[in-house]
This record gives sequence, C-alpha cells and structure tokens, in this order.
Amino acid sequence: MKTYTRPLDLKNGRVDMSHGSGGRAMAQLIDELFARHFANDILAEQGDGAVLPPAHGRLVMATDSHVVSPLFFAGGDIGCLAVHGTINDVAMMGARPLYLSAGFILEEGFPLADLQRIVASMAAAAREAGVPIVTGDTKVVEAGKGDGVFITTTGVGVMPEGIDLKASNIKVGDKILVSGMLGDHGVAIMSQRENLTFETTIQSDTAALHTLVVAMLESVPTLHALRDPTRGGLAAVLNEFAHASGHGMVIREAAIPVRSEVAAACELLGLDPLYVANEGKLVAYCAAADADALLAAMRSHPLGRDAAIIGEVIADEHAFVQMETAFGGRRMVDWLNGEQLPRIC
Amino acid sequence: MKTYTRPLDLKNGRVDMSHGSGGRAMAQLIDELFARHFANDILAEQGDGAVLPPAHGRLVMATDSHVVSPLFFAGGDIGCLAVHGTINDVAMMGARPLYLSAGFILEEGFPLADLQRIVASMAAAAREAGVPIVTGDTKVVEAGKGDGVFITTTGVGVMPEGIDLKASNIKVGDKILVSGMLGDHGVAIMSQRENLTFETTIQSDTAALHTLVVAMLESVPTLHALRDPTRGGLAAVLNEFAHASGHGMVIREAAIPVRSEVAAACELLGLDPLYVANEGKLVAYCAAADADALLAAMRSHPLGRDAAIIGEVIADEHAFVQMETAFGGRRMVDWLNGEQLPRIC
Repeated sequence: MKTYTRPLDLKNGRVDMSHGSGGRAMAQLIDELFARHFANDILAEQGDGAVLPPAHGRLVMATDSHVVSPLFFAGGDIGCLAVHGTINDVAMMGARPLYLSAGFILEEGFPLADLQRIVASMAAAAREAGVPIVTGDTKVVEAGKGDGVFITTTGVGVMPEGIDLKASNIKVGDKILVSGMLGDHGVAIMSQRENLTFETTIQSDTAALHTLVVAMLESVPTLHALRDPTRGGLAAVLNEFAHASGHGMVIREAAIPVRSEVAAACELLGLDPLYVANEGKLVAYCAAADADALLAAMRSHPLGRDAAIIGEVIADEHAFVQMETAFGGRRMVDWLNGEQLPRIC
Repeated sequence: MKTYTRPLDLKNGRVDMSHGSGGRAMAQLIDELFARHFANDILAEQGDGAVLPPAHGRLVMATDSHVVSPLFFAGGDIGCLAVHGTINDVAMMGARPLYLSAGFILEEGFPLADLQRIVASMAAAAREAGVPIVTGDTKVVEAGKGDGVFITTTGVGVMPEGIDLKASNIKVGDKILVSGMLGDHGVAIMSQRENLTFETTIQSDTAALHTLVVAMLESVPTLHALRDPTRGGLAAVLNEFAHASGHGMVIREAAIPVRSEVAAACELLGLDPLYVANEGKLVAYCAAADADALLAAMRSHPLGRDAAIIGEVIADEHAFVQMETAFGGRRMVDWLNGEQLPRIC
C-alpha cells in the first residue's frame, strides 16, 4: 500500500520541487492535503479525470486563472475567490454550476501551512455553494518563477430549458440593475497592498452568486443578460455589452450603490469605483416592464439586499456609455485604457 | 464599436500589465490573438463562459496546468502540449473529448511573437484533434513573478455507454501493454535544457491519443484500465495501479520499447527511462485472453505502431512492482522518491 515515511509537515514544511514530480511526494501532497479537504466520492477515484453523471440539457463551461496578490485579504483569500469566481462565470450564463476542477501552480518554498489554509478555504467555499471540486492538478515551479500559488478553476454547469442570456438580447429601453454595493473587493485588496487602514475594515465581497441568479430567473425568466463586474469593474461590463448589443447605455451616478468608506478609500487611492473589481456582484439587463419585479427578487436574496436600478439602454449608433453625474451633467464612461488594478483576482 | 488605436504589435510587442486588466488592452489581445487563432462559433459568443450543446451520457472532466520549461522544444511547445495533455487525460478514462478551456498566466515582458506562436500551435493541435477551445481566461503577472507563460487546460468529454476503465478492474493475470517507445518527451526536454546534441534529434512524442483509445475500445470493449505515463513515467503508473488494485506487477526489461538514442541519452543524463515522462504514450491493462487482439488494434494505429506487451499482474499482498532485468534477475521498481525531472510538462 502507499505509505509515507512521515506525515506531511503542515506546520513548518514548504513546497519543494518533488511535490510536482509525479512521484511519492506529489502523491502524499494530494492524499494528505487536497483529497482530505476536497473530500468527495468522485475525487476519491483518483483517475486522470473525473467521471460524472449525465447532465441533462445544454452544458456551460467557464474557466478563470487566479493570481490575486496578496493571497490573503480582508474577507477572503485566493482559495475561496477561485471557487466563487468560476461559479459566478457559469451562473452569469444562466446555468446551474455542477462541478469544478482546480489546477495549482505552486512556487517552491511556499509554506504548506498557507497552502492548507487556501485549500481549506476552497473546500469550504465549494461545500457551501454545493459545487464539488472533482478533479485537479498540481505543478511546482522554482522559487522566483511563480508567486506563491496560482489557481485555475474551471466550472461545468447545465443550462435550464428556455434560458438564453446574452448581449444580443439587450434592447433599447432595457433597465440596468446592479445587485449591491460596488468596489468592495478592489478596495479591500488595494488598501491591504498600500497598508492603509480605515475606521472600518473594507472587506472583499467575494461570494457565489448562483442562488441569486436562480431567484432572479424564477421571478423574471425573460431576463436579457447578466455579467459579474470583476476586472475592469462596472465600466468594463457596460462597455462590453454596449459594444456587443450595438446600443448606448446611460447610468445615473446617484443611483449607483457604493459604501461611503469605499468612496472615501477610492478618493484616497486615486481610483474610480466604476472601474474597481467586484467578486460578489452582478449587473443585469431586463425589459423595463420587468425591472421592478426583478429588483424585488434581488432584494429578497441576502446577496442582493442593496440591489438598485442604475440606468437604461438608449439608442446610440456609437454604442457609448454615459453617466449622468451627481451635478446634473453627462460624462463618457470609457473602457479602462491602461492598467488600474493589477492582480486583483 | 470596439476599435483600437493600432493593431497589436505581434512582431516586436510584449505582454504588459494592461493585457490582464479587464480593459481595452485585454479585449484587444483576446480579439486579435486568441479569438483569431482559436476561431470557433462558441468562443465567438464571448460570454463569461461557453454554452455547449447537450452531451448524452456520463461526463468526464480533467484538468492540467502546464509549466514546461523550455516553452519550445524539439517536437512541440507548451501550446500543443497543453492541448494533447488534457485530451489524453479525458481519453484515459475511456471518454470522447469534446471541448477544452484554456487559462493563460502571462509574465509581463513576454514577447507577443512567442505568445502568438504558442497560441497558433494550440489552435492547430485542437483543430487536428477535433476538440475546440471554447472558453478561456488571461491573467498577467509582473516580470519575475511568473515564467513566460503557464497554460491550464480543462477538458470535458462524454463516456460511451458500457465503458468503465479503472484501477479496480485490474485482475491477477492481466497483461500490461504500452503503446510505443518510452522516454522521448522527457529526454527531448532534458537534452535541450542541458544543451546536448545527439546524432539524431530526439523529439517529444506529444500527441493526442483519443483516436488510439477509440480503436482499442472497439477491439476490446472490456479493456480494464488506461493511463498515460507522463510525470513520473511508466514507474509511477505501475505503482499507482498496483497500489489502487492491490496486486503486484512484473514487467520485462527486454520487452519495454525504448529508442536506442533515448537509452543512450538517459545513460548520459543519469536518467532511468522508466521514470521519464511521455506525452503521447499510454499504458493499458486487459485480460490475458484479450491481449493479442488489443496489441493488434494498437499496432494498426499510427500512434501505436510500436506497441508491446511488457508484463503482467501477479498476486502480491505488498502490491510491489518488479522488473525482470535483461540479465535475468528481478529488481524492485519503486515510486520516484525525489525530483527527477522538474517542469517536464
């Protein structure tokens, strides 16, 4: 039987190159760390891949590589973020997330205690969301060729009958909604990097949004489109949808929910909340007639309590995104041109 | 519409942090590089994920992170390797690979010309295999926090009715087969790293094995188990299967196909071909009565021309792997204990 001379030193041990070699050390890392935390029957088969029951309906597949720095931040860590981020990508298509895979790229010398903390956090996030991690892979790179740990998660889900969310559904007159306060994740990361402390700690909003999406689709099955405003923030989502639908968008600054601490931190850090990443929020488009019902459905869900209607889709051959400012003027909300927040997710 | 001031400089340009920011530069990289090469209707939808037709039967999911160094080597590169490796993981379960996702972690400063070469190679490998890349993600890390490019691919496939390949199928008396010459990939990488030249260049065997698996299953539907001997080589596969099945294994050194150049290079590099990675080979277990039919099916396929029966499964409560040497003795073939070949895939 597969036995190891001594158990993995999860207190003081470190990742070394042998943990990626395909030999005994790698088998031990998988047995004593990954398999123990991710514990489920499918993973326990330890094949080259996972065998899963048939899924009825169209499939959805989404992937995200996570390189957030720092690895641990107020409100979360790279582990739960990697689970939530990919679940959300599947959910934004209107699909029900079923399974996750996880590929780890570890840097030689990374403390096993930190790795365990991250793996435990992933496992807890997957369990809470009801989406198991069914297969994975581990590679190790030399010190100085990585940055602690990078995690790529891929999600597979099924699309319920009749659901069809996409940019081309968006019509002139559609209302634009957001599910809550914007900017929390990006500001939590940036204030940690800059070593800023505020009166209250700003926490990342990292969360799995699939049950919110279910509630929204139950209320308004004809929802037009969904997207989570991660990298590039709300501005990126609005511009992508404007580009893809060929319509203009107008939002109202006063209607956009932003915590006062986040607004203050953004001023201090020179950030615009419209461009700051969120990890537990979504943007939704629906027909004007459905907007109140959708808003009510969102507000009845714990992750949509602060949902708001922030604007609408207008006819505009240039497909511009504009914002009515608090002072009554209008300004363009362009794509982010340079780099605002590197390694935010 | 989404327009860019100037096209991506694919000749002299380099990856910068803005290519991972979620803004315009990232959109341009996706449009002008990834989407152009991976061109398919599903990817063209540019959602948060890919919507795929219903798949009938059990699903299979496999993932692999690729960190091979160097990125370009005799016979391949990280791009085609990332496609082949994950297709093979799906195929080793007996499943038909259908779709791939690709997550890129790019290092700031990486030449766009090299990235294009890698992406074009991935696209060609996916096209040749008939397994499209339907969704992806791009992240950028600062210079010195990565190593050019890491690629995590995830594959989804469907399992044909009645197929059930797994270690616990393996029975005493089963024959052990390999599909061809062992050690090519690992030796190609190592000789490139060590700057060794041999009379003939040893090429990586990187290849997608799913059509070979189809031919094998058509011939012997009751095949017991399959695995590709990548990291850790043949020795790792034999030990994993011995451990999981609870049986011993005996292989005959003289029966194991190894090119003479590879054997010579292994001597020079201090490597044992049993532990060297392959990227286009598989190990198969079947009932003794089926072995000749299986061997014939393998040899009729271009990727199984040099297939051989190399040993059998024996009763052994210790589940040891042993080898009858060319000199008539027997030696233990243990797991690799330390690190033999870092970053081989």
